[in-house]
Parts: sequence; structure tokens; C-alpha cells
Amino acid sequence: MESLQNDLLLRAALGQKTERTPVWMMRQAGRILAEYRAVRQKAGSFIQLATTPELAAEVTIQPVDLLGVDAAIIFSDILVVPEAMGLPYEMEEKRGPIFPKTVHTLQDVAQLRVADPEADLGYVLEAIKITKRELNGRVPLIGFAGAPFTIFCYMTEGKGSKTFSVAKKALYTDPEFSHQLLQKITDSTIAYLKAQIAAGANLVQIFDSWAGILSPDQYYEFSLPYIRQICDAIAQTPPNVAVPQTPVTVFAKGAFFARHEIGQLNCAVVGLDWNMDIAESRALIPSKTLQGNLDPCVLYGSYKQIEAEVKKMLNAFGPERHIANLGHGVYPDTDPDKVRCFIDAVKAYSV
Amino acid sequence: MESLQNDLLLRAALGQKTERTPVWMMRQAGRILAEYRAVRQKAGSFIQLATTPELAAEVTIQPVDLLGVDAAIIFSDILVVPEAMGLPYEMEEKRGPIFPKTVHTLQDVAQLRVADPEADLGYVLEAIKITKRELNGRVPLIGFAGAPFTIFCYMTEGKGSKTFSVAKKALYTDPEFSHQLLQKITDSTIAYLKAQIAAGANLVQIFDSWAGILSPDQYYEFSLPYIRQICDAIAQTPPNVAVPQTPVTVFAKGAFFARHEIGQLNCAVVGLDWNMDIAESRALIPSKTLQGNLDPCVLYGSYKQIEAEVKKMLNAFGPERHIANLGHGVYPDTDPDKVRCFIDAVKAYSV
Repeated sequence: MESLQNDLLLRAALGQKTERTPVWMMRQAGRILAEYRAVRQKAGSFIQLATTPELAAEVTIQPVDLLGVDAAIIFSDILVVPEAMGLPYEMEEKRGPIFPKTVHTLQDVAQLRVADPEADLGYVLEAIKITKRELNGRVPLIGFAGAPFTIFCYMTEGKGSKTFSVAKKALYTDPEFSHQLLQKITDSTIAYLKAQIAAGANLVQIFDSWAGILSPDQYYEFSLPYIRQICDAIAQTPPNVAVPQTPVTVFAKGAFFARHEIGQLNCAVVGLDWNMDIAESRALIPSKTLQGNLDPCVLYGSYKQIEAEVKKMLNAFGPERHIANLGHGVYPDTDPDKVRCFIDAVKAYSV
Repeated sequence: MESLQNDLLLRAALGQKTERTPVWMMRQAGRILAEYRAVRQKAGSFIQLATTPELAAEVTIQPVDLLGVDAAIIFSDILVVPEAMGLPYEMEEKRGPIFPKTVHTLQDVAQLRVADPEADLGYVLEAIKITKRELNGRVPLIGFAGAPFTIFCYMTEGKGSKTFSVAKKALYTDPEFSHQLLQKITDSTIAYLKAQIAAGANLVQIFDSWAGILSPDQYYEFSLPYIRQICDAIAQTPPNVAVPQTPVTVFAKGAFFARHEIGQLNCAVVGLDWNMDIAESRALIPSKTLQGNLDPCVLYGSYKQIEAEVKKMLNAFGPERHIANLGHGVYPDTDPDKVRCFIDAVKAYSV
């Protein structure tokens, strides 16, 4: 097994005791860092940056050096999967992702391919390999993908939305189409995450960013079963010396109603957003490590406030089975010194 | 006491037995109806329509005639309150509301006034009076206002947002400013809702549309106490023959974590969104009437699906202490025939 100088994240994920609570942040490789913005400008565009392995690796490692986090997360986007299936996206400044073509019929689904990670997503796998080499065992590397339902939202709606009513309309009006598309996304995602693990990812996280727009019934029909398939497929990957059992984290933002059910999945870690009460979540998910869940807006507060909120969070989670994180990606206008205060406070107060 | 031909809504709100479950929809007076769009075009703009009492009354009554709902809700906008406090807004097609000026300092707060409903919001009160006259007792009329925190979001952020991080930043960095502004909004809202009741509103609803972006701690500090003030102030209004005790509905979208606490307020009805499990919500809020909570996207389904989902909802709520509604405003591209199917199904299956 690969020897890591800092394996706190993996040990906490697997439920083992750790000397202190590990900490990282969603979107830590991003606009909060001037050093990121410099590389982003050099690359020319977000997509150029994400598809150039050397640059993606560089920004992936920045927060390890600059912020002192206990894990790197590969710099990429959940929308590389639809692109690899044959549905390219564009990234517009301020407006976010746009899909010029969207998917609406069984024929549209038939025209998509199951992503072949080596052929279609080689640039991410290459970025993982470079990152692993350059990290040189300092901290673990996290891989990730979107949950099939969240990817489905973008492939049908074509852009971000408050309600994703086009996507949800498809679930009600054409469940056959919806399930076929979700299955194709799931098959692509399983292949992609397995390839990330083979390339060196030490843990993989599934982001169900739009879980919270579904009713519980729809969540259990259209989202959870596909996440379950992914968790089961990764758990079944035969462990070997080079690639031991890889922990999976499921983060379903807004799916407070499904916490108990998510806790039954074949995953090691469940992510919480900042709306979810910690004690209640522990009771609903007794057997998993929990990740989260500070409100990202706490980092707008004073150093004293940040420290107080971190202490409160650590006390609520307790010293075991917890990976400290925000309850959402860090907001781009956050002061990096406040971010460092958050990270340092977790390290100082969790011993 | 005013005699109403159909008082199902009020009796259900007060926890009395009704022959069937009453039904209405948030945003029922709006873009789903061709008849609304015609009046809207005649008015020239959304704000012109909202500030012209005869036209506002006309579109308020349309869904009673055209859809058969058990209540009218006055056509207006929650943002008339900041405007009455001295902070005007504009409504941009597709982008939504924009405040050219926003509020950031104690001095900014000092420059705002507590709204004087007669002087500043007379057009809404006039629209209520015209509506009451034209309804002529057919169904009750619902008045409404935004919850102070939701109004605070717009006054500080200046526009809609997915995260309202400017608004939330103020809560963390300047609680004194935040509480002063929230109190001024609350005082304005109490005066406004009392004036709506005096003008003829039979029930008033408080919309906390952005409740779901707050952590539980912040919700209990910055939102719930101000809603409580409003509920208490309306409950303390001395009942008289002309104006009996007016039921209050609190709808805090996304505040699943606060259901028990909201259920302790001095209100008659608690609104649920479609993420909230009905049985769990009944257990958390045992002593109130509940309102909701069909996913608005169900109305994109077939007639058969809509009927099946309505039956499921009615069974889950049971025949008492329920006001049927969607879990959010009806989406503008919904087919009016599907809306009628929803309303007719509640009427048919709740007897």
C-alpha cells in the first residue's frame, strides 16, 4: 500500500482513530487563491485549465502548500462526464455552464455513448498521475464525479437553474427516458471513478449538488438508486496491493430527508450541508464518518468568530468519524487568511 | 362577522372540521393564466399592474372564477415593503427584482422609514377593498408579506441570488446593523399586515422564501424572532365584530430544521414545501393546520399522475387540519388545465 506522510483523511474515512480531525474544503483549488487566478489567466479559460493536465495538477496542489489542507482534490468539473458522453459544454463568465445541445428523447439518449475514461477523459487521469507524482505522498488525493441525477439536470436543462423544472418535468412526463439517461450517466460515472482510482485517487466523492430540489419519493426513484450502483461498483472493485479498498463519500446537498437512507449506502463518508443539525445527522447515520459542515459564510466573520464556530462544530461532531469541511464550496470572494484561520482552528482545537 | 359563502379555508386554518379540504395555490394570480397576461400587458409592467388597484383586484379574482380555488390572494409583491421604507425596486424581465440602492450601514438603516401603510401602501389596501367588494363573500381573501429575513436579503443583496452571500455576510460581520434593519422591517410589516386585515384580508401569510439558506443557529437568531413578533402582534390585535381574530400562516421554505420551533409560534397554519415529509411534519407540528405541499412539477405530469399524487398527498395529511396547496408557487409554464385537474382532484378526493 502506498505510504502517505499524512493519511488522516483516509483513516478518518475508514472510521479509525486519528490524532486530530482532518480538514479540507470543497472548491479549495479555485478563485479564492491569487495563485490559482494567475494560472487560470495563463490557461486562457476555465476549460483550457481543466483540460491541461500540468496546469490542473498545479492548481490542485496549491491549497496543500498555501493553506495546509489534509487532502488535495483533483481540479476538474462534474460536467466533463456529459462531455465525454458526447454532449460538450461551455463555461460563460458569471453565467456558469451552458450546454448548446440538450437531451430530451430516447433517440437523443441512444446517440450518447458510455464514456470511455481512457479515450475521453485521459486528461483528467493524466492530471491525477502528475498530481500524485508531485504530491509525493504528502497528502491523499480525492477524485470526484457528479451524482447521476445532478448530471441529468444539466444535460436536460442545459444550464444552471433555481428550480431545474425542465429536468424535473422529464422525470414526471417521461420516466423511461429519464431512467435510460440516468443509467447511461451511471455507467459512465462508474467507469470514470474506477479509472480515477486506478490513476491514483485515494478517495472519491460523489456530488449530488441538486438533490435538494427533489421530493423524497423522486429522490428514492431517480437519484439514490444510481448513487447506490456507483457505491456498490466501487466496493466490488477487487482490492489489490496497489489499489486498496477506496473510500467513497456521498454529498447530497439539501437531501436532509434522505440522510438515513444515504447512511445505508456502501460508502464510507456522508457529507452534510450547514442546514443539517450535527447531532440529528449522527443519529440518522450512526455507522459512517461524517464530513462538513460549517456555513461558508462564517469565513466572512472575524478570526474570533471563525474560531468560535469551528470549536462549536468540532464539539458537536466529536473527535472521531469526522472530516472537517464547509457545508458547501468555499465562496470565491473569501479572504484566504480567513480560510487559513478555519484550517488552523480545526488543527488546533481537534487534538 | 363577515358572512362568507365558502369559508372552508378559514375553518381549516382554525382547526375546525370541514366537509372537504380547501385548496388554493401560491402564484395562482399570475402568468399561468392567459387572462392574467392580457391584463399585465394592458398595465404595461409588473409594477404598474401591482400599483393599479382596479387591475390588481381584477387579476386577484381571476383564479377564483377560472380555476375554482377556495381563496383569493391579493396580487402584490413582497418587495412593496422595502419600497414603502424608502428603497424602491425595479422588476427586470427574466432577471427578476433589482434594487438600485442597497442598505449596508447603520446610517443607511437610519435613513429608512418605518412604512406607513396608509401613506405608502394605500394602493394595496385599496386593491384589497375593491377585491373584497367584487368577491362579495364568495371566498376569503389572503393578505401577505415577506418575512423580515427574506426582505433583508433583497435590501442588502440588491437582487436575487443562489447563496445571498452578501446578506449572510452582514449577519456574521455586523449583527447590530442586521438586527436594526430586521427590526425596522418587522415594524413596517406588522403595520402593513394589520392594515391589510383592517382593509379586509381574512388570513395573512408570511413568506420566508430564503429561510433555507440559513444555518439553524442563524435562523433562530435572525429570522424566527422577527416572525414571532409579527405573529404575536397580530394575535394581540383586539378582535372586534368587524375584524375577528385573523389566522396567520407561516411558510418558511427550506427551513425543515425549524419545523418544531415554527410550530410553537402564535400562528394557525404552517406551510410545507415538497421536500418535507408529511407524517414527520405532523409529528413535529402537532397542534397546527398544515398547508401544502405537492411538488409544482407534478403539474407537468399526465392527468392520471396528478390525480394519483393528489390522492397520495391527501391520504398523508388526512381529512383535518390541512389546506391543500403546492409546496412552492406554481411555475409559470404550467398548463392551466393541469392546474384545474389539481384543484378538482383535491375537491373530489377529500370528501
